Amino acid sequence: MRFASDNSGPVHPKVMEALAIANEGWALPYGNDDLTRRAADRVRDVFEAPEAAVLFVATGTGANALLLATLTRPYETVFCTPEAHIHQDECSAPEFFTGGAKLTLVESRDAMMEPDALARDIEVLKSGGVHSPQPGSVSITSVSERGTVYPLERIRAIAQVARTHGLPLHLDGARFANACAALGCTPAEMTWKAGVDAVSFGGTKNGLMGVEACVIFDTAKAREFELRRKRGGHLFSKNRFLAAQMDAYLTDDLWLTTARAANDVGQRLARALKQTPGVSFLHEPQANMLFPRFSRAAHRRLHEAGAKYYLWEGTLDGDDDAILPARLVCDWSCPAENIRHFVELVRG
Amino acid sequence: MRFASDNSGPVHPKVMEALAIANEGWALPYGNDDLTRRAADRVRDVFEAPEAAVLFVATGTGANALLLATLTRPYETVFCTPEAHIHQDECSAPEFFTGGAKLTLVESRDAMMEPDALARDIEVLKSGGVHSPQPGSVSITSVSERGTVYPLERIRAIAQVARTHGLPLHLDGARFANACAALGCTPAEMTWKAGVDAVSFGGTKNGLMGVEACVIFDTAKAREFELRRKRGGHLFSKNRFLAAQMDAYLTDDLWLTTARAANDVGQRLARALKQTPGVSFLHEPQANMLFPRFSRAAHRRLHEAGAKYYLWEGTLDGDDDAILPARLVCDWSCPAENIRHFVELVRG
Amino acid sequence: MRFASDNSGPVHPKVMEALAIANEGWALPYGNDDLTRRAADRVRDVFEAPEAAVLFVATGTGANALLLATLTRPYETVFCTPEAHIHQDECSAPEFFTGGAKLTLVESRDAMMEPDALARDIEVLKSGGVHSPQPGSVSITSVSERGTVYPLERIRAIAQVARTHGLPLHLDGARFANACAALGCTPAEMTWKAGVDAVSFGGTKNGLMGVEACVIFDTAKAREFELRRKRGGHLFSKNRFLAAQMDAYLTDDLWLTTARAANDVGQRLARALKQTPGVSFLHEPQANMLFPRFSRAAHRRLHEAGAKYYLWEGTLDGDDDAILPARLVCDWSCPAENIRHFVELVRG
Amino acid sequence: MRFASDNSGPVHPKVMEALAIANEGWALPYGNDDLTRRAADRVRDVFEAPEAAVLFVATGTGANALLLATLTRPYETVFCTPEAHIHQDECSAPEFFTGGAKLTLVESRDAMMEPDALARDIEVLKSGGVHSPQPGSVSITSVSERGTVYPLERIRAIAQVARTHGLPLHLDGARFANACAALGCTPAEMTWKAGVDAVSFGGTKNGLMGVEACVIFDTAKAREFELRRKRGGHLFSKNRFLAAQMDAYLTDDLWLTTARAANDVGQRLARALKQTPGVSFLHEPQANMLFPRFSRAAHRRLHEAGAKYYLWEGTLDGDDDAILPARLVCDWSCPAENIRHFVELVRG
Repeated sequence: MRFASDNSGPVHPKVMEALAIANEGWALPYGNDDLTRRAADRVRDVFEAPEAAVLFVATGTGANALLLATLTRPYETVFCTPEAHIHQDECSAPEFFTGGAKLTLVESRDAMMEPDALARDIEVLKSGGVHSPQPGSVSITSVSERGTVYPLERIRAIAQVARTHGLPLHLDGARFANACAALGCTPAEMTWKAGVDAVSFGGTKNGLMGVEACVIFDTAKAREFELRRKRGGHLFSKNRFLAAQMDAYLTDDLWLTTARAANDVGQRLARALKQTPGVSFLHEPQANMLFPRFSRAAHRRLHEAGAKYYLWEGTLDGDDDAILPARLVCDWSCPAENIRHFVELVRG
Repeated sequence: MRFASDNSGPVHPKVMEALAIANEGWALPYGNDDLTRRAADRVRDVFEAPEAAVLFVATGTGANALLLATLTRPYETVFCTPEAHIHQDECSAPEFFTGGAKLTLVESRDAMMEPDALARDIEVLKSGGVHSPQPGSVSITSVSERGTVYPLERIRAIAQVARTHGLPLHLDGARFANACAALGCTPAEMTWKAGVDAVSFGGTKNGLMGVEACVIFDTAKAREFELRRKRGGHLFSKNRFLAAQMDAYLTDDLWLTTARAANDVGQRLARALKQTPGVSFLHEPQANMLFPRFSRAAHRRLHEAGAKYYLWEGTLDGDDDAILPARLVCDWSCPAENIRHFVELVRG
Repeated sequence: MRFASDNSGPVHPKVMEALAIANEGWALPYGNDDLTRRAADRVRDVFEAPEAAVLFVATGTGANALLLATLTRPYETVFCTPEAHIHQDECSAPEFFTGGAKLTLVESRDAMMEPDALARDIEVLKSGGVHSPQPGSVSITSVSERGTVYPLERIRAIAQVARTHGLPLHLDGARFANACAALGCTPAEMTWKAGVDAVSFGGTKNGLMGVEACVIFDTAKAREFELRRKRGGHLFSKNRFLAAQMDAYLTDDLWLTTARAANDVGQRLARALKQTPGVSFLHEPQANMLFPRFSRAAHRRLHEAGAKYYLWEGTLDGDDDAILPARLVCDWSCPAENIRHFVELVRG
Repeated sequence: MRFASDNSGPVHPKVMEALAIANEGWALPYGNDDLTRRAADRVRDVFEAPEAAVLFVATGTGANALLLATLTRPYETVFCTPEAHIHQDECSAPEFFTGGAKLTLVESRDAMMEPDALARDIEVLKSGGVHSPQPGSVSITSVSERGTVYPLERIRAIAQVARTHGLPLHLDGARFANACAALGCTPAEMTWKAGVDAVSFGGTKNGLMGVEACVIFDTAKAREFELRRKRGGHLFSKNRFLAAQMDAYLTDDLWLTTARAANDVGQRLARALKQTPGVSFLHEPQANMLFPRFSRAAHRRLHEAGAKYYLWEGTLDGDDDAILPARLVCDWSCPAENIRHFVELVRG
C-alpha cells in the first residue's frame, strides 16, 4: 500500500528498454545527438507546436525554476497560489534562479488560482511604482498540489488576466499527463491554445527515471533558457539518456497509458472511500491524488499494516476518534488489491 | 498641510551646521576618520551597548537589506508581517541582498506580528525538511507601517519565540525615535534588552538628510556586514558627512526632540479628528502616522486646498458620502496651524 | 601634503550653499521634485543628450554596479581591464548586482584596454557555445586607474569592436571631469559621439559630498535602471539633496573649474618630479593622478613629514636605495605650497 | 575514432544492470532509501573517511558549483587556474551558485596551479581591506583540463598555502579516477590526506550515465550543501537511480578498471604519436587526455576519415604545413584499432 508519492514507484519497463538501446554506440554530448533531436520533435508533435523550444532537464524543481527565471526579471514577482510547489517545496529555488524575484501569493480555492484575485493583486502592485515588486509572471499547477484539475476555461481566464497585463503564464506540469487524462483534452488545448506560454511537461512522476521537458512556446526565450540551464548545472553531457526516456514516453502514448492507470487507481480508491462511513475529503479528488479525512484509529490501523502515505495534519498520538486528513498519491504501478486492502483498514 | 511623509520635510538646522563644520579640512575616506569614530561611539552610548557594531548607510532600504542579508542565508526565510516595508515597499531588496531568501508573511494585528502565529509558522517550515525554505530570521517594524507602536512586552514575546528556534530578530527602526518617544523607553530597552539582535536606527525620517545607523549587537557579524555594505555600494568615501549628521542627531537629544515634536503633531491631529463627527480610524494612531477615515467630500475639500497626503484606498472620483481612509504622516517641522486648517476642511 | 585620494578633500563651498538652499521648504520624496528634474535637465544639456535617462546615486560603486547590471545579463560577462576599479576595488559589486555575471580581463597598456585584445577575447568566448560565459558588455575607465586618459580615438576603436558584437559600452567616469579637462573635449565627444552607451558621471571625487549621475543614452533601459536602483537601496527619499549638489556642479562650469584645478596641481607636481634626479614614472601622468618612483629614503622623509599617499608597492622598511612607486592623487583644493614641499622632500 | 570527449562513450554494462536491479520495487524518494545509504557508505569506504558527507548529483557543473557555493561566501573569491573548467566551461555556474563570488585566476603551468603564485595572490587581496574580494576558497582540477595530473606533493603544497590563510581546498574530480589510476595512489591520499576539504568524485566521464559524488570531509558543511542541492534543483526524487550507478561503480573496483582502460588507451596513443615524425605535445599527457600538435594536412586526413576530436586552435582551412594542436580524450570503451588507425592517418 504505497501511496506516499508517485515518485516512489518503478520506471516503466519500456523506458528501461529505451535506455538500453540508447546505450549502444557513441553520441555527441550536450544534446547534439540524434536521439535528443528526435525526442524534442516528438514533444513538439504531441503539443502540436512545431516551433516550440523543447529542452530536457532531470528534475521538476530544475524545470520550474529555470522556466520562471527565463520569464521573470529579478525585480519582478511571480504570482502563484499559497499551495504552489514552487512556493512551499523547492527551498526557494525560484527565488534563487530568478536572482531574487518575489513570489506573490494569490487567493485560491482547492489550490486553484482565482482569476479575479489575480487581477486585483496585479493592480495593487502596479499602483506602487518603483517601490513595489513589479508584476512579472503567473504560475499555476495542474494537477494542483491538492489533487484538483484546472478546467480549461479556468486556465483561459487566468491567461486572459495575465495577457492583459503583459505577463507570461507558466504551467507546472509535474502531473501534466494526469491532468490531460482527467480532462480528456489534448496537450495543446491545455497549454498554448488556452494561453499558457511555457510548461514543464513532467515524466518523473509518471514512469520515467527522471526527465521533465521544458516547452517554451515563445522561441525568442529559448536561448536564454539554454544558457540558464547550462549555468544551473542542468545540461547533461549524456543528454541522450534523458532524450531516450522522453522518446519512449511519447511512443504509442505511453505517457497517457500510465497517467490513465494512475488516475484510475486514484478514482477507484476515491469511490471506495466515499462509500465508507466517516470518510470525507478536503478537496474533490480529480486525478491520482486524494486528501481523505478519517479517524485516527483508522490511521493507526493503516500504519501498523505498513501503509505508506503522508498524514497531512496531526500525528498518530492522541484521541482515537479525532478526524485527520491524509495525502494519498497513486502511481501507474499500483496494484488493485492495494485499494481493497487500504479501504478495509479504514473501515476497521 | 504636508502630511505625505516624514521624509519630505527639511533637514534640521543643527544638522546642516554639523555638515558645514565637518567640511572643514581633510579626512581619511571610507570611515577611517575621527568623526565616524565619534558618531559610532555616540550610538553605542545611546544604546548602552559599548561592544555593538555601528555602521552608517544613507537609506532605509539599504540598512534593512544589508542587515537581513547578514542575518539570513539564501536558503532561509525572513518572517515578517504582510504590511512590512521590507515586503511591500523595497522592490524586493531583501530578496536581492540575501541572494534569494524568501519572506514568509506572519499573521499580524494592526501591522504588529502575533508571537503565536510566528511560532506556528516556524514549526510548519521546520517540518518540511530540505524542501521548505528554512527558518532564518525575524523582522519587525516599530513604529509599524500602520502607525502602531510595539509594546516592549510584545517585542520580548517575539524575541522569545525567535530565540527558541535560534533565529535572530531584526528591528526596522525607520521611525525608531518616534517609537521610543511614544513609549518613553530607552533605546536599550527597545532593542537588546528586549531580545533584538540588530536594528536600523533611522534618522532620515526624523530631521537628517539621509543616514541610518545599522547597529548589530552580535559583533561577530560586523565584518560580514562591512563587506556586504561595500559590495552593495553603500560604503561612502566621504563617510564623515554621514557621521556628522548622526553626531548632531545624538547631541543634546536632538533625535528625541524632533521625534517628540512629530509625535506631538500627530497626536494633536488625532485628537482633533476623533472629536470630528464622521471620522474613525483604521488603526489607533500611537506616534506620528494616522489612518483616519472620512467622507470623499472632505477628501475633495482637502485636495482642492492643496493638502498633501495619500488617499489610502479609492479615488477622489465618485459618491460624496463614501468613507475613504487616508494616510497622514507628521514630521518634526509641521506647524500647528496646519492641524487646525486640516481639521476644519474635514469638518466642512 | 594630502595626496591619498581626491575623495578626502572638502566639498566645494558652492555645493554647501546649494544644499542649504535646497533645505528651504518641502519637496516630494524619491526624486519627484523640481530640483531633481532641473538637475537632470542640466546633465542632459551638458551631455547634449536631450533624450538621455539621468539618475542620481551617491556612490561610484553603486553607479557602476547598477549600470552594469542594467547592461549585462547574469550569464554574460563584462569585459574590462585587469586594473579596473570594478574588478579590484568594489568587493565584487558588479558580480553581485548582475546576479553573477563574470568579469573578463582584457589586455591593457597603462591601464587602458587594447581594442584588438578585446576583439580576440570576444571571439574566444563566442566559440564556446553555451559552455562559455556570453559576451555581455564592455567597461572602461577614464581617467584610468593608473592616471592615464583614453584618447577619443581609442574610445571610438573600443566602441567599434563592441558594436560589431552588439555589446554596450560603459564608461566608469569617477574622474570624468578630469578626463574631459585633460583632453579639452566635450562630454558628448567623450561619450555618445564616441560610442559610449552609459556613463557614471562622477562628482564625489571632484568637490561634491557624494553624487554620481548615471547617464544612459538608450532610454529603453531607463526603467530597468530605476527598479534596480530602488531594489539596491540607492534611491534616496530626500533625493533633492543629491540633485542640489549636481545642480551646483553644473552651474557656471564648476565641474570643469575644479577638475582643471586638480589636473593643474597634478601636472605641476609631475613636471617638478620629472626634473628631480632619480624619479621616474610607472605611467605617464595625464590628469590628477601620478605614479612616481623614487627611493625608499625619500618615502621615509615624506612619511615623517606627514605626507599622506599610498606606497604602491613595498613598505618603508628596508634598504634606503630601493626604488618604490607611490600613488599620488591631487584634488581641487590642494594648495600650491604642498607641491613644493613634497618635491623638496623627495630631493632630500 | 572517437576522441571528442570521455562523456560521449557508452555506460558500462554493469551500471546498466545495476539500474535494472534498482528498478525492482518501490523506494522512498529524495535519497531516503537503502540504496542511497549503501552507495554513500561505499564512497566513504573508498575514501577511508567514515565521517564524510557524501551526496549525489547528476552533473559535474552541478557538483562543482554546489561545493564551491558551500565553501565560499558571496563577497569572497575562488582561486583557480585560467584553464579551470569552473572558469571557462560552466557559463559562470560558480558565480551563480555562490551569489556572485569572483573567480581569481592564479598562474599555472601545464594547467596546474603554482603554490607560490597562490600565496602571492592571497596576500594581494588581503591587503585591499573591504574593497577587495576576500580570499574564500581554492579550487584545482586533477586530471587537469590539459591532461596533466597533480603530483601529491603539489596538492599538499597548495593545501598548505590554503590552510595558512584559512581557505578550504576544493578538488574538481571530473576525472578523479583517471588521476588516481595515473598516480597509483588511493583516493584518501589524493584528498583529505593531502589537505583537500571537498571533492567532486566524478563518474559520468568514466562509464556512468550521469553521477558525481560530492564528498565533504568537514561534515559541519553537509546540511548547507543539502539545502543548496535542493534549492538548485539537484536533489533527485528517484535518487536511488543515482545511487545504483555509484554503487556499481565502486563494486569490484569498476571505477579503477574503466579509468585504467582509458588511461591505457591514452598512453598508448601518446607513445605512438611521440614516435611519429612531426608530432609534438602542448603538454605532457599523463592520463587519458592528449594535446598533440601536427600538420593541418594530417588533421584534414583524419577529418575526412571521420575521426572525432577538437581542433584546439585554428581551422582546417589554410596552409597544409601549418602545425595545429588537437585535443584527444580517450574513454574506457575505445578499441585498440582506433589508435593504430588514427596514428596511420597522422603519418599520412
